[in-house]
Amino acid sequence: MTTQPFRLVIIGGVAAGASAAARARRLSESARITLIERGPDVSFANCGLPYHIGGEITDRAALAVQTPQTLQAMLNLDVRTGTEAVAIDRAAKRVRLRKLAIGAEEWLSYDKLVLAPGASPLRPPLPGIDDVRIHTLRSLQDMDRLKSAAAAAQRVAVIGAGFIGLEMVEQFVHLQKEVALVELLDQLLPPLDKPMTLLMEDELKRRGVQLFLGDAIAGFATAGGALSCRLKSGRSLGADLVVLAVGVRPETALAKDAGLELGPRGHIRTDAFLRTNDLDIYTAGDAIQVRDLVTGEPAAVPLGGPANRQGRAIADHIFRPAEAKPLPGALGTAIVRAFDVAAGLTGWSEKRLRAAGRPYRTVTVNDNHHASYYPGAKPILLKLLWDPTDDRILGAQATGLAGVDKRLDVIATAIAGGLTIDNLSQLELSYAPPFGSAKDIVNLAGFTACNTRDGLVSPIETLPDDPAVQIVDVRPPSLAQKHPVPHPGVINIPLTALRQSVAELDPQRPAVTVCALGKTSYFAACILALHGFSVQSLTGGLRATVDPRTPAKLPTP
Amino acid sequence: MTTQPFRLVIIGGVAAGASAAARARRLSESARITLIERGPDVSFANCGLPYHIGGEITDRAALAVQTPQTLQAMLNLDVRTGTEAVAIDRAAKRVRLRKLAIGAEEWLSYDKLVLAPGASPLRPPLPGIDDVRIHTLRSLQDMDRLKSAAAAAQRVAVIGAGFIGLEMVEQFVHLQKEVALVELLDQLLPPLDKPMTLLMEDELKRRGVQLFLGDAIAGFATAGGALSCRLKSGRSLGADLVVLAVGVRPETALAKDAGLELGPRGHIRTDAFLRTNDLDIYTAGDAIQVRDLVTGEPAAVPLGGPANRQGRAIADHIFRPAEAKPLPGALGTAIVRAFDVAAGLTGWSEKRLRAAGRPYRTVTVNDNHHASYYPGAKPILLKLLWDPTDDRILGAQATGLAGVDKRLDVIATAIAGGLTIDNLSQLELSYAPPFGSAKDIVNLAGFTACNTRDGLVSPIETLPDDPAVQIVDVRPPSLAQKHPVPHPGVINIPLTALRQSVAELDPQRPAVTVCALGKTSYFAACILALHGFSVQSLTGGLRATVDPRTPAKLPTP
Repeated sequence: MTTQPFRLVIIGGVAAGASAAARARRLSESARITLIERGPDVSFANCGLPYHIGGEITDRAALAVQTPQTLQAMLNLDVRTGTEAVAIDRAAKRVRLRKLAIGAEEWLSYDKLVLAPGASPLRPPLPGIDDVRIHTLRSLQDMDRLKSAAAAAQRVAVIGAGFIGLEMVEQFVHLQKEVALVELLDQLLPPLDKPMTLLMEDELKRRGVQLFLGDAIAGFATAGGALSCRLKSGRSLGADLVVLAVGVRPETALAKDAGLELGPRGHIRTDAFLRTNDLDIYTAGDAIQVRDLVTGEPAAVPLGGPANRQGRAIADHIFRPAEAKPLPGALGTAIVRAFDVAAGLTGWSEKRLRAAGRPYRTVTVNDNHHASYYPGAKPILLKLLWDPTDDRILGAQATGLAGVDKRLDVIATAIAGGLTIDNLSQLELSYAPPFGSAKDIVNLAGFTACNTRDGLVSPIETLPDDPAVQIVDVRPPSLAQKHPVPHPGVINIPLTALRQSVAELDPQRPAVTVCALGKTSYFAACILALHGFSVQSLTGGLRATVDPRTPAKLPTP
Repeated sequence: MTTQPFRLVIIGGVAAGASAAARARRLSESARITLIERGPDVSFANCGLPYHIGGEITDRAALAVQTPQTLQAMLNLDVRTGTEAVAIDRAAKRVRLRKLAIGAEEWLSYDKLVLAPGASPLRPPLPGIDDVRIHTLRSLQDMDRLKSAAAAAQRVAVIGAGFIGLEMVEQFVHLQKEVALVELLDQLLPPLDKPMTLLMEDELKRRGVQLFLGDAIAGFATAGGALSCRLKSGRSLGADLVVLAVGVRPETALAKDAGLELGPRGHIRTDAFLRTNDLDIYTAGDAIQVRDLVTGEPAAVPLGGPANRQGRAIADHIFRPAEAKPLPGALGTAIVRAFDVAAGLTGWSEKRLRAAGRPYRTVTVNDNHHASYYPGAKPILLKLLWDPTDDRILGAQATGLAGVDKRLDVIATAIAGGLTIDNLSQLELSYAPPFGSAKDIVNLAGFTACNTRDGLVSPIETLPDDPAVQIVDVRPPSLAQKHPVPHPGVINIPLTALRQSVAELDPQRPAVTVCALGKTSYFAACILALHGFSVQSLTGGLRATVDPRTPAKLPTP
């Protein structure tokens, strides 16, 4: 008696699809595994595309992590590139495939089907959008076109200041282009809270990038062959080349036509094992809707890391259903580097928490990425958000010149473990002068959060305009004179003189203490509070008024 | 009515003591805080001392984080340097102080007392130990002496290959000395498992350091004014300068004389709030015994990070006892860099687990510290240990050329959160090509651990000598010929040919698969296992036989 081999069909051959195929083969030598890919490439490094355009990754072949041939040789897969899945017959458990080059169609039967169609870059229906000089970036072919177009271009406009937009800006500056960046919001990196994007904003300006924040693309015009971007503000921006990086749309036509359920924002619905409402059809990657780890609500996280792990998890559930564990919720951890600055987040931002009406508290702390006395210490800024009802961490954002990824990863792990701000303050992180500080900035964020919760310090995020409030600049007079606080009526009393000079302040009037980084002002606020003042400390300090590239000499142990 | 101010006396003015004093002042403006320090300096950066000797930190003043004057000015402390606490009168709640310069003594009363005496470097009573050319390193004065002696020395012997020993070796090589390193164990970095120290060993050899592992110092001899180290093996080692870095002894004479309880290894006993058996006396830093986070058993962790947090926690418990939280147990997270290599650990090592008779399992994984296709990817090796009874992580060790601190910190946080190997595999860490991989090595360690637990792969740590076992080298023939597996009777069948060549192997005989990094051999072992073989995969691969500085081109997605 021969048994029919188990038939696994996977639609989409990049991150999620290729991971599902590879893991499936390691769990079954006998399964017939077919990998369907519309494009010519499988399992390519899509996160690396900007770096080949800019020349940081010189070898194009490095991005083609696998080819159909290597997948066949190593994993015994039936790889069909240039092939589109055009319909799913769920009743008969088969997919209709079209060989794009010749148009031939056929049905392929499955026992289990995996949909990993990904997402396509948005191309809003704007006037002039079809100009060939307007690019998006998803495939190796897009990359080749962009790289070739960039060679002849001098002025480049990038539309959208998200992660990919910033990566492209960086690479075009490397190529010595004149670069303009247009963003609808009045900040870079829309997922982050604005104060956490200012260091990156400074960095782009320093590198000569022309920023159009709080403005939107309205259309494209051609005059005498020259392309220009028309902005909502009325401004016009000449460009030889435009890159649209304004988000992605999940590719769900196939799923929708097959009657699979979509979520409120059009992503394919999944359970904790990544099954659709048809239990023989799984889905993974940029097209799907997952569960938010913090709230349990629907979330979409179109990122490479989750896609890879999802693909693998699907194979586990297909071949080892009894042992498979449900996937945890998503945090949306993400990071980007542009020039010397990195910025990223994990979990919820303040703007999301506020919009959702969830209770939260937040602190922002400044420090150096390793011991200040050891050469090469670079500034880093960390914002922490937590739930005041149970002290658990809800999210964090970090930006700086080094060590940003480490702090995000530690806090992502802390959220996964359900840790509180007290736990964060006590984390035992690796310390030697080249790597960290005896009290790492993660500990410091925990300390500051606990101080805030306990009422030992009352943070304020901007200086109040109320003339009744005494603004006390507690920096040394030399610094206070060189970089004055941009606010009227500021009194300069350095921390070291505060106890002796406390009589100069009016204990009946509220006070706000100010310093460069938010640490000395906290120390000063403690003194004033213990002297009976109603006092707040400017959280995160005046960072914007000092050059963040000067490692801060921190004044106290 | 005037109330007597609260009197806090702190013995020891460096990490733990200075942190206690600073936090105490922020919680109370009215307390009378006295900081007693035997040496001339307070709050100096003791972890930075080696780097000033080697010239990496050029400015000595950078190490004097605070002076008695700055502490007085900022924190209104009564700082008494050059003053030794010689006795505690617990009944009367007072300490006897001796001003060392003049010998004058006085009693000082306390409401609460903090002991932060630290630990002193061991100087074993060996023949010739009193030679002035034999140094230890604890204070700024030790540093000055060593730096000055180094200027005139050509041959330097460092005794002890722990964290400080390796830092000193690195700095002496920077100074272009001829450096010899003697270590009792047959490995560097005694807290780590030996395989995790080999990369560092290679690095030291590459830098010309002469290693004497598995040998011990027996004494010192002088002939014609020349100093030599006599080793247990009989070897003799000429040296112009010797640094002893063979461990520290807690300074507990004062505590012991006062009847405070000591633990089995002579450290001062504490409760979870760092109180001694006298509830008015707290203690922190290198002299104390804490609780191990994993086992709850007594532990000593003489490191800067815990000392700083402990000092702070004591002030919290003194001034805010109702709100103070008990300290979590200790993990002993530690890291060291020497030249291009970093190595460190968190939690329990395999040797400790084995010695304690605790159940554990372990895997070792190789990867690059960020996406392999992005320039600058550096190899990193990660060993994970977990408890098979509940899948919780017990410890980890990492070594590599970049990103070691990040992985240790993520796993330290995971242990603090009680995470399992399944949780580790699903951590959502920040990913962009310059920072990590879509499946970070931490995820990979989780995947591999789960595979091991689930019986999907059976790891083996060394190649068996049993001729009945088929050793299958699954690397490409070119690599297999260039760097042959150092073992008789090895069969080379590259992964890509394994399915077609499986008939060349005997399914009745056990097999072990081998590759460079342990990944391809795992893939091969999956194939053979699914073909009915009893097969194991060499965990971590043949790393020692390939140059770890060549970023590994990993063969599969």
